[in-house]
Amino acid sequence: TPAHRIAVIPGDGIGTEVVPEGLRVLEAAAARFDIPLRFESFDFACWPYYERHGGMLPPDWRERLMGFEAIYFGAVGWPEKIPDHISLWGSLLQFRRVFDQYVNVRPARLMPGLRSPLVRRDGTPRQPGEIDMLIVRENTEGEYSSIGGRMFEGTERELVVQETVMTRHGVDRVLRFAFEQARRRRGRLTSATKSNGISISMPYWDERVRAMAAQYPDVSVDQFHIDILTAHFVQRPEHFDVVVASNLFGDILSDLGPACCGTIGIAPSANLNPERRFPSLFEPVHGSAPDIAGRGIANPIGQIWSGALLLDFLGYRAAHDAIVRAIEAVLDPASGGPRTPDMGGTARTTDVGRAVAEAL
Amino acid sequence: TPAHRIAVIPGDGIGTEVVPEGLRVLEAAAARFDIPLRFESFDFACWPYYERHGGMLPPDWRERLMGFEAIYFGAVGWPEKIPDHISLWGSLLQFRRVFDQYVNVRPARLMPGLRSPLVRRDGTPRQPGEIDMLIVRENTEGEYSSIGGRMFEGTERELVVQETVMTRHGVDRVLRFAFEQARRRRGRLTSATKSNGISISMPYWDERVRAMAAQYPDVSVDQFHIDILTAHFVQRPEHFDVVVASNLFGDILSDLGPACCGTIGIAPSANLNPERRFPSLFEPVHGSAPDIAGRGIANPIGQIWSGALLLDFLGYRAAHDAIVRAIEAVLDPASGGPRTPDMGGTARTTDVGRAVAEAL
Ligand SMILES: CC(C)[C@H](C(=O)O)[C@@H](O)C(=O)O
Ligand SMILES: CC(C)[C@H](C(=O)O)[C@@H](O)C(=O)O
Repeated sequence: TPAHRIAVIPGDGIGTEVVPEGLRVLEAAAARFDIPLRFESFDFACWPYYERHGGMLPPDWRERLMGFEAIYFGAVGWPEKIPDHISLWGSLLQFRRVFDQYVNVRPARLMPGLRSPLVRRDGTPRQPGEIDMLIVRENTEGEYSSIGGRMFEGTERELVVQETVMTRHGVDRVLRFAFEQARRRRGRLTSATKSNGISISMPYWDERVRAMAAQYPDVSVDQFHIDILTAHFVQRPEHFDVVVASNLFGDILSDLGPACCGTIGIAPSANLNPERRFPSLFEPVHGSAPDIAGRGIANPIGQIWSGALLLDFLGYRAAHDAIVRAIEAVLDPASGGPRTPDMGGTARTTDVGRAVAEAL
Repeated sequence: TPAHRIAVIPGDGIGTEVVPEGLRVLEAAAARFDIPLRFESFDFACWPYYERHGGMLPPDWRERLMGFEAIYFGAVGWPEKIPDHISLWGSLLQFRRVFDQYVNVRPARLMPGLRSPLVRRDGTPRQPGEIDMLIVRENTEGEYSSIGGRMFEGTERELVVQETVMTRHGVDRVLRFAFEQARRRRGRLTSATKSNGISISMPYWDERVRAMAAQYPDVSVDQFHIDILTAHFVQRPEHFDVVVASNLFGDILSDLGPACCGTIGIAPSANLNPERRFPSLFEPVHGSAPDIAGRGIANPIGQIWSGALLLDFLGYRAAHDAIVRAIEAVLDPASGGPRTPDMGGTARTTDVGRAVAEAL
C-alpha cells in the first residue's frame, strides 16, 4: 500500500513544542501497527511566516495541501504580534472552509488521574469515565461568517453588522453525522440552541433537528438553550452523550466540556471532511498559549490524542485505541507517569511525549 | 413622598408561584424601612393571556406601563403551548428594547449554605464569598436582533440569515456602566469576546473596550474569548469581579456563573434603564420552568433577591442589604431554614418566602 501522506503544520507558540511529541507517538504507533505514514512539514500558518511574507499562507497553499489525506496541525495565533481575527481567518478558518471540513469532533472524557473541577451533588469527586461526551460542532458556516461591515466609521453613529448564515445543506449534514455518532455510542443526542432569543437562525436549527430526529427514532433527543446548557455541563455532565451545536455554540461547549474534565490541555479535535474529497485536519483544542510558549512545559496530550483521531480517520481503529490506552496509562496515578504543570506536575513537554511513546 | 409605582407581572409557570413570595418580602421590607410602594398587577405576558387574546400584550401596553418606575417580573414562556421566540419576543424582549433597559446586571455569588458544584484545584470545597462576580450584559442589541430572514424556503437550497448589530452608542454605554461598577467593587473588569472567530462584530467590541479602558486607568482590564472564558469560570471563578459581555455572551455567562454558585434558582437580575426615562425590570434569572410548575416547589429566592435589586435601584440601599442578609440567614445551615428541592431540601416555595420575610 502507498504511504498515507500527512501534512504537518506546527504553527505558533506551543504548537511548535507539542507537534514533535505528537509525531513521536504517531511514529511509534506506525511502527507497532505497521502503518505506512509519510510526513511533510510546512512552515506557514504562523506569525514568523507572516512577518517574512506579509500573509499567513503562500498563494498556492491549496494546491500544496490538496494531495494530503490529513493535516496534523499545532496551533495558530500570537495576539501581541497580529490580531487573532487576521491570523485565524488567514489560516485555520480558511482550511476548515476551503477544505470543507464541516464537522468538528471533540471528545470530552474524564481520564484516569485527572481531577475534574466538578463534584457530584453530594460533594464526592467525579470518577474517570463518568463524564464522557462527544461534541459535534458545525465547522464551516453559522455565526462564523465573513459577511458584514462597518458604517459611519469613526463617528458617534458608528455601527457594525455581522451575519449568521445557516443553510439546510450545512445544518443537515452535521446533524446527520451527529445522529450517526449517537447511534454508535449511548444513543442520546443533545442539541444546543438559543431559539428563544436568537429568533431567526436558531428556530431554523431546531426545525432541522426535529426533521432529522424523525429519521432516527432509535436516538433519544433533547435540546437546551445554550445558557442553561452550560449550567447543566457543570451540574450534571454525566447526562451528556453526543452534543451537537452550531459553530459558535460548539466552540464554547468544546472548551467548557474539556475544562469540566480537568484540563483543556489534553483535549483533541478532528476537523473532518467525511467524504474525503479534501484533507481533514487534526489539532488540539488548546491554542498557541503565548503565555507559556517557549518554556517547554506545554501539555502535549491534546496533540497526541489528536494524532490518535487521525489514525482512526485513516482506518486504524486499533492504533487509535492503543494511543488512547497509552495516554491513560501515563495519566494513571499508579504509574507515577510525568505530568506537566497544568496537570499538577513538574514534567516537561518532552517527558510526557516520551512516556506515551514508550507506553505504546 | 408619593408612593413608588411598581407594575407586577407574574407571567408564566413558576413565575406565578415565586412572585407572591417576592411581594411578601418586598412588603415586609417596605414596612420595616417605611418605603412607600404601590403595586399594580397585570395579567399579560403569559400563555393564558395569549390564549384568550391571540397576542402576548395588549395594544396599549406601553402607555399602561410607562408611568411605573419598575416592573417586578416573574417569568414568561411555555414552549409546549407556544414557541419561545414568539412568547419572548412578544413580551420580555420587547420590554427590554422599548423601555431601553440597556444593562442587565446579574450578581453571581456563592452564598452560605449552598454547595458549589466546583472545587478548588486541591479538591477542597469553595467557600461562601469565594465566588463573587457581577455580570453586566448588554441588553438591547448585539446578537439578539430581529433582522434577517429565510430564502429558498422549503427547498434543498433553503437558508437563513440573521444579523448581529452593535452600535457605538449601544456598546459604549454598557461598557461605561460596567467600568463604573468595577470601580465601586474590586477594580477588575473582564471583557468577554470572540474576536478570533466572529471577525467583524467582536473586534469592534474589543476596540471599544480599549477606548473605554483608557478613561479608567484605575480599573484593571483583561479579556478572554468566550470559549476559554467558560473554562475559566469553572477552573478559577475566584478570578472574576465584573464581567462585561454582549447580549448573547452575557446571557450564557449569567447562567453559568450562578450555576457555579450552586443553583440558578437564587440568581436575580435587573434590566436597567439607568437614566430612568423608562421603567426598569427586575426578574429572576431562572425561567418559567414548566417541568416543575404548579407543584409549589420552585425556589423563590431569585425573585426575592430581584426585589432587593429593585429597592436598591429606587435608592433604598439599606433595605436591599437587609433582604440579602435575610436570604443569607435563611440559607445558613446553622439556621435550619427551609430549602426547596433544588437546594437539597423538601420545603415549599411559600415556606422559603415566609422564612425570609420573618428574618427581615
Ligand atoms: C428567555 C430568554 C429570551 C432570555 C434571554 O436570552 O435573554 C433569558 O435567557 C434571560 O437570560 O433573561
Ligand atoms: C482560534 C479560534 C478561531 C478557534 C475557533 O473559534 O474555532 C478555536 O477556538 C477552536 O475552537 O478551534
